[in-house]
Amino acid sequence: MAEGTYTLNISCPDRVGIVAGVGTFLAKRNAWITEANHFADRASGRFFMRQMLLANSLEISSEAFEAEFRPIADEFDMEYRLTDNRIKKKVIVLVSKLGHCLADFLSRWKSGDYDVEIPCVISNHETMREMVEWYGVPFIPIPVSRETKSVAFEQMEEIFDRYSPDLIVLARYMQVFPEKVCRKYWGKVMNIHHSFLPSFIGAKPYHQAFDRGVKMTGATCHYITSDLDAGPIIEQCITRVAHVHTATDMVRIGRDAEVQALAQGITYHLEDRVFIRNNRTIVFYQ
Amino acid sequence: MAEGTYTLNISCPDRVGIVAGVGTFLAKRNAWITEANHFADRASGRFFMRQMLLANSLEISSEAFEAEFRPIADEFDMEYRLTDNRIKKKVIVLVSKLGHCLADFLSRWKSGDYDVEIPCVISNHETMREMVEWYGVPFIPIPVSRETKSVAFEQMEEIFDRYSPDLIVLARYMQVFPEKVCRKYWGKVMNIHHSFLPSFIGAKPYHQAFDRGVKMTGATCHYITSDLDAGPIIEQCITRVAHVHTATDMVRIGRDAEVQALAQGITYHLEDRVFIRNNRTIVFYQ
Amino acid sequence: MAEGTYTLNISCPDRVGIVAGVGTFLAKRNAWITEANHFADRASGRFFMRQMLLANSLEISSEAFEAEFRPIADEFDMEYRLTDNRIKKKVIVLVSKLGHCLADFLSRWKSGDYDVEIPCVISNHETMREMVEWYGVPFIPIPVSRETKSVAFEQMEEIFDRYSPDLIVLARYMQVFPEKVCRKYWGKVMNIHHSFLPSFIGAKPYHQAFDRGVKMTGATCHYITSDLDAGPIIEQCITRVAHVHTATDMVRIGRDAEVQALAQGITYHLEDRVFIRNNRTIVFYQ
Amino acid sequence: MAEGTYTLNISCPDRVGIVAGVGTFLAKRNAWITEANHFADRASGRFFMRQMLLANSLEISSEAFEAEFRPIADEFDMEYRLTDNRIKKKVIVLVSKLGHCLADFLSRWKSGDYDVEIPCVISNHETMREMVEWYGVPFIPIPVSRETKSVAFEQMEEIFDRYSPDLIVLARYMQVFPEKVCRKYWGKVMNIHHSFLPSFIGAKPYHQAFDRGVKMTGATCHYITSDLDAGPIIEQCITRVAHVHTATDMVRIGRDAEVQALAQGITYHLEDRVFIRNNRTIVFYQ
Repeated sequence: MAEGTYTLNISCPDRVGIVAGVGTFLAKRNAWITEANHFADRASGRFFMRQMLLANSLEISSEAFEAEFRPIADEFDMEYRLTDNRIKKKVIVLVSKLGHCLADFLSRWKSGDYDVEIPCVISNHETMREMVEWYGVPFIPIPVSRETKSVAFEQMEEIFDRYSPDLIVLARYMQVFPEKVCRKYWGKVMNIHHSFLPSFIGAKPYHQAFDRGVKMTGATCHYITSDLDAGPIIEQCITRVAHVHTATDMVRIGRDAEVQALAQGITYHLEDRVFIRNNRTIVFYQ
Repeated sequence: MAEGTYTLNISCPDRVGIVAGVGTFLAKRNAWITEANHFADRASGRFFMRQMLLANSLEISSEAFEAEFRPIADEFDMEYRLTDNRIKKKVIVLVSKLGHCLADFLSRWKSGDYDVEIPCVISNHETMREMVEWYGVPFIPIPVSRETKSVAFEQMEEIFDRYSPDLIVLARYMQVFPEKVCRKYWGKVMNIHHSFLPSFIGAKPYHQAFDRGVKMTGATCHYITSDLDAGPIIEQCITRVAHVHTATDMVRIGRDAEVQALAQGITYHLEDRVFIRNNRTIVFYQ
Repeated sequence: MAEGTYTLNISCPDRVGIVAGVGTFLAKRNAWITEANHFADRASGRFFMRQMLLANSLEISSEAFEAEFRPIADEFDMEYRLTDNRIKKKVIVLVSKLGHCLADFLSRWKSGDYDVEIPCVISNHETMREMVEWYGVPFIPIPVSRETKSVAFEQMEEIFDRYSPDLIVLARYMQVFPEKVCRKYWGKVMNIHHSFLPSFIGAKPYHQAFDRGVKMTGATCHYITSDLDAGPIIEQCITRVAHVHTATDMVRIGRDAEVQALAQGITYHLEDRVFIRNNRTIVFYQ
Repeated sequence: MAEGTYTLNISCPDRVGIVAGVGTFLAKRNAWITEANHFADRASGRFFMRQMLLANSLEISSEAFEAEFRPIADEFDMEYRLTDNRIKKKVIVLVSKLGHCLADFLSRWKSGDYDVEIPCVISNHETMREMVEWYGVPFIPIPVSRETKSVAFEQMEEIFDRYSPDLIVLARYMQVFPEKVCRKYWGKVMNIHHSFLPSFIGAKPYHQAFDRGVKMTGATCHYITSDLDAGPIIEQCITRVAHVHTATDMVRIGRDAEVQALAQGITYHLEDRVFIRNNRTIVFYQ
């Protein structure tokens, strides 16, 4: 993500004059727009807009911006958010035993692809501790059993509340989140499911896919809701499979699609490209 | 499909000596093998084999071949079929109102991709008559209403029985086949379903896909069973979609994937590349 | 293409205030924006913008629009074009012997995908006459030999000048256009080349690809210049190939990618989504 | 790769009786075939065959196998190789400064995907030392300057000779190998080139791709020859790019295709799926 930019995200009821209103506001503050996306959702009558601004072109502070923008926002009944991209976003990752998605995330982070802070990685197993600590990231083990589940999730919620992360990534984390946490962190908890949703919801999707004899398998990156694997989809990737592949082969082959779909979803979220509308996402690709 | 070849398809319980037995048999008849595929399905313990032979390398007739092969087939408990590719296969196509899959089939047929005979195209509507007749193919209208359905399918069955087609293609034919016909023509009736099965079974799959907010839509070519959209899958193709696409857009965008999946499935079937095992297919790609 | 819309295409030097200026202009005329795309090319310092407007939301005629927009265009040094999408675009197609790209174009046109007028199809062979006339489109044979080439192209130029087409499609037309026509119809003549450019320029690209032993082959849709296969690329598609495929197989297999790349390129052009900047295209995908 | 298997690779002039000869030989030794691939290259008249055998089904040792197979090999003028997959292959990796391909290789190795021994990683820079050593793999720095180049490559050749690796991977290693080493290790040195070959040979392919304005960029895994980027291609992958992407963006976006193409190439090589014939590869996919 480029330094020295702001991202302005807006959604509001669609009507004439939004672009003019926002455009004039920005031009008066001398804002240099480097990227702009609009989407008018005719089904819901809602308008979505994302603008990237060069920070040093703006003649006012972000605080002043927010204050001065308020009347326009009120006029058009806007939800809006101005993000200063010079401030690192915080990402907490949760993992169980399978580490490929986590390894890819940490590797991209180390190479500079994700310019974020990682307060910690949380896991219900010890498997990934060594790798996480090699990257210099704190590893917090929180075992989850049927008896300890509610305590474990309270502990996690405390950690979330302490760091107030911009994104929580379930990188093959095999525990269902309680509804309360889903609601509190709505739109901030991203899961990677190892099937082409809505096919093969729940456990062992590759085995389900094998049993159905599909010729392609996939992975789906989505925001979680309290309904299992039913939240808004951000990205999907697929891989061809054939009769030679057993369910075990598919587990191995499918990893690349999981890694790829999750990496895309994370990038879109960190670059504030994703809007949620009902159970759908608007993703403004670059 | 090259002229002047035989295809030998075999399936049997897996054990040592199959390849040697068949190979020796073929070598003794001087058979020149141009393509060979094997698959040992360790789950079911079954072995599948497809061999392409140059017809003019064989020193015996196909009748003599079949007779002489019988002892080996018995020894290994084989199901087998020798296909003389110089004899054109017969394909009957069924269509309702949407003609893109039919148009693609006829266009490829005219260009020589499919070296087959088309005894007729059957439809429950008049929409495609003009195009079918332009290609010089008989068009048989068989309207289907709730009242006439059983009569209509008896009429179709008679047509099938008369021509004994090698393949019946449901090229966006929107009527469910009666169980009796499904059984009689098992493994010969191919459907194109406009979703990535097992997602979005049944009516209006693009609208279902839109409602779920998927980022990819697909098409599935499969053999029919009496269970709707549940038969063995032969090929699947996908297309990316985004928030800008309405269900109507998806109907339009998805057509290419339908055409592509069906064309592949037809090619595989006509080249005898497909074996069915339970509810799965083995497809020997070239 | 939806009826009842205008498309406004603008390019100009990048600076602050463009969006505000255009947005305010549009809002004052009550223009309802259904789709908007911007791109600030930081390398060249040029800004590109495409807006779709609902025709019946505009309170002025397109002539009045053009007149009233002039001062803004001058202020920002804009090139701009307002297209009334209720007026059908005109497309002339040229083909030699291989008809798959033409057949696909006509089939999509007949199905309503391309809401255009086809004044004629021109060919240097008789091969495709029958199909073209079945679609009710005039077929104009213009044979080209070394001796007749200059006369032939003068004849074609006259036809182009007569109809003033919005797009000329070379749908596997195997003659190089003279520089004069390239210049006169710059940005309006689209070719499909059967390789992944810049690999395999010129004749028999599939044979070149076979000789190099590539694992993927492709097709490239581009605007023509007088340099062979060197013009701005609009779209590219690829197909996997393997050792089993001869050059002849690749010719057959590659057809789908050619059809697909060309169909995309045509759609982008007809929807005024393509800008040319030096030897590159900006394509605003939906 | 499953333990307890042999792979038998054969190539010879094509004629009748090869499959029978080999099949009978294997059946007499009770060999259980788990996977078999054949390819008759009609252009060159050469036949290629790969067979996977369960080791514990064979009633003789691999030494006895080799000895007993000799007469058949002589009869058919075969080149052949029997590989005992219980013996780990040795892979030496070379890298310069960009570590993504190396990181992916080590991560897959650690996760068990590659059941190989890594005697060392060689680099002309110190950049990747820390990561390599974290994986417990010896890191050998061999700086290369114009003056030291010949000495450096002699040192490398000594290392190669000492370990006799089955595969040498150039994982973004930015030095051209001397012809002598290319010849000595012919078919064992694999490079990843960051373009869709034969487009954009040599330095800075992404910048070349940007300048040409392509809509897809790619990566090519190939065996090296002394001609730069001209050796037999094993695998190619592509990524879509658009006008929004600068050459720098393409460097970043292209990494995934590089990693993917190289990982596939390595897998095919390690599973003895690749045959080289002139400047082409036959790759027997699973």
